[in-house]
Amino acid sequence: MRTDIEKWDYFELVLEAETPGNPFLDVDFSVVFSLGHRCLPVAGFYDGDLRFLARFMPDTEGEWQYMTASNIPALDGVSGSFTCVPPSAGNRGPVRVIDSYHFAYADGSAYHPVGTTCYVWNHQGDALEEETLATLASAPFNKIRMCVFPKRYVYNNNEPPLYPFEGERSSPWDPALLNNYRYPETPDFWDFERFNPAYFQHLEKRILQLRDMNIEVDLIIFHPYDYGAWGFDKMPAEVNDRYLRYLVARVAALRNIWWSFANEFDLMADHSLADWDRYFKLVQQQDPYDHLRSNHNARRFYDHGKPWVTHCSIQRHDMTQIPRWLNEYKKPVIVDECGYEGDIGNAFGSLSAEEMVARHWLGFATGGYVGHGECYEHDDDVLWWSKGGKLYGECPARIAFLREIIEAVPPPGLFPLSTDREVLDMLVDRPYNGITVGHNGVDYLLIYYWMHQLKYARLNLPQDKRYRIDIIDTWHMTIIEAENAATGSVQIKLPRRNYIAVRVERAH
Amino acid sequence: MRTDIEKWDYFELVLEAETPGNPFLDVDFSVVFSLGHRCLPVAGFYDGDLRFLARFMPDTEGEWQYMTASNIPALDGVSGSFTCVPPSAGNRGPVRVIDSYHFAYADGSAYHPVGTTCYVWNHQGDALEEETLATLASAPFNKIRMCVFPKRYVYNNNEPPLYPFEGERSSPWDPALLNNYRYPETPDFWDFERFNPAYFQHLEKRILQLRDMNIEVDLIIFHPYDYGAWGFDKMPAEVNDRYLRYLVARVAALRNIWWSFANEFDLMADHSLADWDRYFKLVQQQDPYDHLRSNHNARRFYDHGKPWVTHCSIQRHDMTQIPRWLNEYKKPVIVDECGYEGDIGNAFGSLSAEEMVARHWLGFATGGYVGHGECYEHDDDVLWWSKGGKLYGECPARIAFLREIIEAVPPPGLFPLSTDREVLDMLVDRPYNGITVGHNGVDYLLIYYWMHQLKYARLNLPQDKRYRIDIIDTWHMTIIEAENAATGSVQIKLPRRNYIAVRVERAH
Repeated sequence: MRTDIEKWDYFELVLEAETPGNPFLDVDFSVVFSLGHRCLPVAGFYDGDLRFLARFMPDTEGEWQYMTASNIPALDGVSGSFTCVPPSAGNRGPVRVIDSYHFAYADGSAYHPVGTTCYVWNHQGDALEEETLATLASAPFNKIRMCVFPKRYVYNNNEPPLYPFEGERSSPWDPALLNNYRYPETPDFWDFERFNPAYFQHLEKRILQLRDMNIEVDLIIFHPYDYGAWGFDKMPAEVNDRYLRYLVARVAALRNIWWSFANEFDLMADHSLADWDRYFKLVQQQDPYDHLRSNHNARRFYDHGKPWVTHCSIQRHDMTQIPRWLNEYKKPVIVDECGYEGDIGNAFGSLSAEEMVARHWLGFATGGYVGHGECYEHDDDVLWWSKGGKLYGECPARIAFLREIIEAVPPPGLFPLSTDREVLDMLVDRPYNGITVGHNGVDYLLIYYWMHQLKYARLNLPQDKRYRIDIIDTWHMTIIEAENAATGSVQIKLPRRNYIAVRVERAH
Repeated sequence: MRTDIEKWDYFELVLEAETPGNPFLDVDFSVVFSLGHRCLPVAGFYDGDLRFLARFMPDTEGEWQYMTASNIPALDGVSGSFTCVPPSAGNRGPVRVIDSYHFAYADGSAYHPVGTTCYVWNHQGDALEEETLATLASAPFNKIRMCVFPKRYVYNNNEPPLYPFEGERSSPWDPALLNNYRYPETPDFWDFERFNPAYFQHLEKRILQLRDMNIEVDLIIFHPYDYGAWGFDKMPAEVNDRYLRYLVARVAALRNIWWSFANEFDLMADHSLADWDRYFKLVQQQDPYDHLRSNHNARRFYDHGKPWVTHCSIQRHDMTQIPRWLNEYKKPVIVDECGYEGDIGNAFGSLSAEEMVARHWLGFATGGYVGHGECYEHDDDVLWWSKGGKLYGECPARIAFLREIIEAVPPPGLFPLSTDREVLDMLVDRPYNGITVGHNGVDYLLIYYWMHQLKYARLNLPQDKRYRIDIIDTWHMTIIEAENAATGSVQIKLPRRNYIAVRVERAH
């Protein structure tokens, strides 16, 4: 029987074996996949019901061989092969960093992250989860931040349908703990030596559905929003490491995975900086595909300069700092959390749509990336930012408009205006104080004026080149062509409004 | 002959004398004013045409005596008296700092600075200057920043009608110098040993007109916008000191004077920090009335903690820092320059009215003060920010609205929310990230939501007090009473818009 697996999909080997002891702890099971002289060792995992699985995402077409190794005879020395065939339409492989500051799919096609956040949409039961998927199908997002673990927080008082470990709470949760950052004990009501495979199967199902919608998953491995509800934020070190190995073995073969080690890592008092470094190194060592890795902050940044960090995942409100971070870390900057459109009492979730759209433009127009979220209060406590469901805001349409503009920038994307002399010389009025400029050499400029209402955009275009100049109203989503073959000294009359941008593009 | 001078107006002694040598340099002339055993020495000055003047602003009603002293017999030993009578309506005396962070007139009545900037309106000739005064008469401003010296800058290429010294330029000014911060020589085309009294008489006339309109004058003593046009920014040290003594002798008796030692002192490369300290000390020593003193920055602050600084005069764009500065310097904070409403190519002068009004609210609502300016481009180069003339923007009406609200705050004004436990406890949702709260104990709260659109304002009012709660739309200038006798736990539905404020005021 010939098995065909398309490139960047995954091959799954399933073996059954009765094992003595605890199959999660006492069984070594791994598989080496090989193509010619290239060998890739992959960790297998126990999936319950006597089933041992190993998953592998091939990145090269051809006939791959495999051979298992185990301390259990039934799982040892099993060999076979499959054929890796060309990817189908829409399958462009995992996302990588290119040109220091940007991203692309493995097939080389452009990828500009336009993300949203629904932290625990995958813990809400099928009806709401299916509604979230339907909403995402018509939303502009190609990336989502979501948690492995359930969440306890304001607007998040429900129990998830499944838990990641066997066992159950011995006592009801005390809501008073929601006001404490520290609460007493490491939980003793889970069997931390036995994962619940159904929990991870459900997670994988949702990740695969997102994969097939071309949505990257920024998978949040740890988070502090637990408050003693389950204690997944303060598990013993060996459990954390076992959890990381199990998670990587299960989901690394899903091409749309990014590893987000935490949401607000610096609020997790039970994890030291040395712990975070260890998690990064462990995942980097276990992940055969080198998926993207970062760590999201509350107040203080994780050091994005560390070699195992592939890009900066940032929570901040001031997008004008993006050029500074790009320069400091020499890596792509994604401000996953700049605040959310909404109307809740927490200031993070009450931004007006105008402000939220402005933060997106400020970030994208300087060569960074900005993430979305929405917090409109509803009686059923279903807020997009956490549980998914429906989108109510005015941002998504405008982010779709922005995404079209960003995807039309010459590859790999925009760079912040810094000391590029040729580009600086094109600007008669030097921008500062919130007027931002992204460029792609002298072929493309995007000037975003934010709350500035200049009467004229004045440009000094190279005399030997011609440019199309568009005036973009980022809020009303209009693009008006002002010039189509401009050269030399140009003065463009601008509308006297907030949120105007000017696009200057080489006309060939 | 009995002379009556109202309190905080000034008495002017005029003596004539022919003197050998240079009357600006070679004549010592001073006057001691006394009331009972209280003696106040005041420097006189030469006003041209053989006239020597001394001005004195009495702060106490009664019969004041004076006696002159001079190295010129005709000016020596002249004595006399005048009667200081009660002030007329509108004359509330000079402005002082009270309660560390606020201001009041000398008569104790409240003064909240609501300033504007017309740097060199007084160098534009009578027609435009009279138009500026007419505009100010119906504008909401009770303070103006203006320069002693003329200004050369973009939109400022005209020569002033008068110069402060005798002499004239020996060569035409080169416009290319406008692009240089440094230019060569100390000017040699002025007779720095001879002031031009007509120049200062004109300045005084304008200051007095403003005084009579109840507009304080934040008089800018030095500024860097000269670019070799006149060289008043790089005069020799002894000329600077003589200029300071002459200026103080002439105008200190005008009660609406504030000393602003510079605009953007840190751009003046020819003045060291030690120079600025010396200027402060010299003026403090010469000024019998201890008028307010500060020094305005471009990038780096002058140290407002120095003992001779009475308040912080600040250029910054981020008003959310005001509570930090108040706490750091323990002095009133006036952000004289937060950017200007306008449409010019310079980012400082292209803020939308929405943004400019928001910066005012952010500043005032945290116990600071924010200044206005306007930069709409016109063919005649008359921009309010520099030359005065007419106001075109949408801010002034909204600043008038804000001023009414600020003037209705219980004295001495608002304080930023910091660690005041009683006030913190009134707020169910703790403000941050641009939501600002000013308070006056538990009797008055002003919450400004900026770009946050909370569905509800939630308050926890003291059970033993009743409050009126108003919803203020700071842009549309509406005030809607939501409650008139609220107490305890209160939830106020807010409109879902930018720029909303809530006022919570003790109902007595």
